[in-house]
Amino acid sequence: MSTASIGSKNYHAIKASKSAEIVAVASRSLEKAREWAASRDVRKAYGSYEELLADPEIDAVYIPLPTSLHKEWVGKAAAAGKHVLVEKPCALNLPELEGMIRACSAAGVVWMDGVMFMHHDRQHMMMDMLRKGELGTLRRLDSGFSFCADKAFLESNIRVQADLDRLGALGDLGWYQARFALCAFDLELPTHVTAVAHASTAGGVPIDVSVCMYYAGNEKVATFDSSFRTGFRQWVEVAGTAGALRCDDFVVARNAESVEYSVVKGADLVADHRRVADERSTVQVKGVCQEANMFDTFSAVVAERAGGGAAPAAGSAAHWRRVSVLTQAIMDACMASVDAGGAKVPVPVPAADI
Amino acid sequence: MSTASIGSKNYHAIKASKSAEIVAVASRSLEKAREWAASRDVRKAYGSYEELLADPEIDAVYIPLPTSLHKEWVGKAAAAGKHVLVEKPCALNLPELEGMIRACSAAGVVWMDGVMFMHHDRQHMMMDMLRKGELGTLRRLDSGFSFCADKAFLESNIRVQADLDRLGALGDLGWYQARFALCAFDLELPTHVTAVAHASTAGGVPIDVSVCMYYAGNEKVATFDSSFRTGFRQWVEVAGTAGALRCDDFVVARNAESVEYSVVKGADLVADHRRVADERSTVQVKGVCQEANMFDTFSAVVAERAGGGAAPAAGSAAHWRRVSVLTQAIMDACMASVDAGGAKVPVPVPAADI
Repeated sequence: MSTASIGSKNYHAIKASKSAEIVAVASRSLEKAREWAASRDVRKAYGSYEELLADPEIDAVYIPLPTSLHKEWVGKAAAAGKHVLVEKPCALNLPELEGMIRACSAAGVVWMDGVMFMHHDRQHMMMDMLRKGELGTLRRLDSGFSFCADKAFLESNIRVQADLDRLGALGDLGWYQARFALCAFDLELPTHVTAVAHASTAGGVPIDVSVCMYYAGNEKVATFDSSFRTGFRQWVEVAGTAGALRCDDFVVARNAESVEYSVVKGADLVADHRRVADERSTVQVKGVCQEANMFDTFSAVVAERAGGGAAPAAGSAAHWRRVSVLTQAIMDACMASVDAGGAKVPVPVPAADI
Repeated sequence: MSTASIGSKNYHAIKASKSAEIVAVASRSLEKAREWAASRDVRKAYGSYEELLADPEIDAVYIPLPTSLHKEWVGKAAAAGKHVLVEKPCALNLPELEGMIRACSAAGVVWMDGVMFMHHDRQHMMMDMLRKGELGTLRRLDSGFSFCADKAFLESNIRVQADLDRLGALGDLGWYQARFALCAFDLELPTHVTAVAHASTAGGVPIDVSVCMYYAGNEKVATFDSSFRTGFRQWVEVAGTAGALRCDDFVVARNAESVEYSVVKGADLVADHRRVADERSTVQVKGVCQEANMFDTFSAVVAERAGGGAAPAAGSAAHWRRVSVLTQAIMDACMASVDAGGAKVPVPVPAADI
């Protein structure tokens, strides 16, 4: 749905997936749709989203539209019986997202958000390591995710338009960081956040933000910065009482053929504090296409929903609904804190039935 | 002055330096002093600090006493005409430090704090790179410095005693992080800070803190965590519009023979956002003993002060006074913020004449 540039990436992903097939593309311009389809070996092109949703051959749609349009088109897709894979940030706020997901559930269709890194084997390996307690009691998660946008982007990109995507760098980058923290901390929602916008557009869209997430009991904390005005970075560190894990490209694998993460354990000062002893290891993960995996997992969730498949290892439909609303809840709190000048605000608790 | 365990490290450092010589050790216990001296080939041992300060053969003293005792012993050392090298955190607060440094200046003796990493060749190389603008306009500095203290430490170590060192993890670890930020940002003092203590002792000493430092104009920001309850980490990242620098062991060189730092420039998404292109480099720095360098620089500053030497490349006496008070100003603001529950507080501006 749309010929947005991210669609190209997903075209390749669907082609590389084992279980999904790309049938059609739709644009508000038939000409654009035809051009996009022709240059990519796609069978059908539609000049409106409605026509796409009316096509009985189509099981599911990918929705990379501006966030402000998600509610309308997720609702229409669900009504047409199409499963939806929706780009982040999912919604303008939590109640809107809860409404969308309820519409999907009522219509019997699957909801999933398009967070590709969740589907990399590396991600599962890192999360397994944390769950096994290899780093001891977890204390911190810190992450930096940024790129240095040019003037044109900051003036006109969808992601900085207050009426299209109010969350700015929070929604575009912070969504991934909040998601990683949720996964690292076993889907525990922070109770409070502070989010300070160091820079915003004239329309109040934050483009450089520092976030701190607080958890019940104060045993751990997570911080991240999301910025459109710092050079490209995409790192995360998780630190526990017994060690730390670091990944320098957790969102987009630097290299499609081989990625890695590093672990340091048992570090301590030795020899009269003149040097450090530690156990360092770097784990390499080869030959994984996280985008293709995303479509395979999406297909598996759809198959499970239709009664035709086993529960996917990466999580069933309920899991994917849940991680979306939890992430959105953090975004809502961050935006409320930004609006309150960085004050500590509570994180809304999503409805238990989603 | 004292047989504190850090003294062992400095014994080796002085032995390895080209220009300093260790003449004597003093302890409140003559027996301890004699034992320490005998096991280390040190000529003289004193059973009181006063006797040490009265020794005309001694030019300078190293003071690793608890912070609350610095004022008394820096004052007495200055009065005795001894130059002082003082462990961090330097003072309980900025006015106290200003008083100590004025006492040194009035007595014609040199003040320097014992921040060893400042004297590593790697540090100079990294700072040169930042000054040359190789990372573009600097946007962020982030740092994690922690170790997981055991129960005994948290119950009885000097660094968590409210009457000996109120700054806790801020003074012990944050001092280095604030210092690195000062150096990276050309000694610019943040205008405000927030500092949240996630955990403190019963006596109110912070043992796990997240700090954010704000600068005039909001063009950049610095954050760091200082913790006695997270595994050992000591990293810093500086990110600008054009790249980022990372050092994983900025305080204590992991390996005495060879250390490194890494730089990423020109990073961007390529190939339909399916991978990342960047220029990565790792700079190795070999065979440097930062502790020995510290004593050599200290000696050079003393020689300059005495009119017998050129201005040291690493900075003359005024520079070392200045970086101490600027660091202390940040610590004061952090502690004020901790006491105010993490509120944003202004950073006091040190007296211009120091």
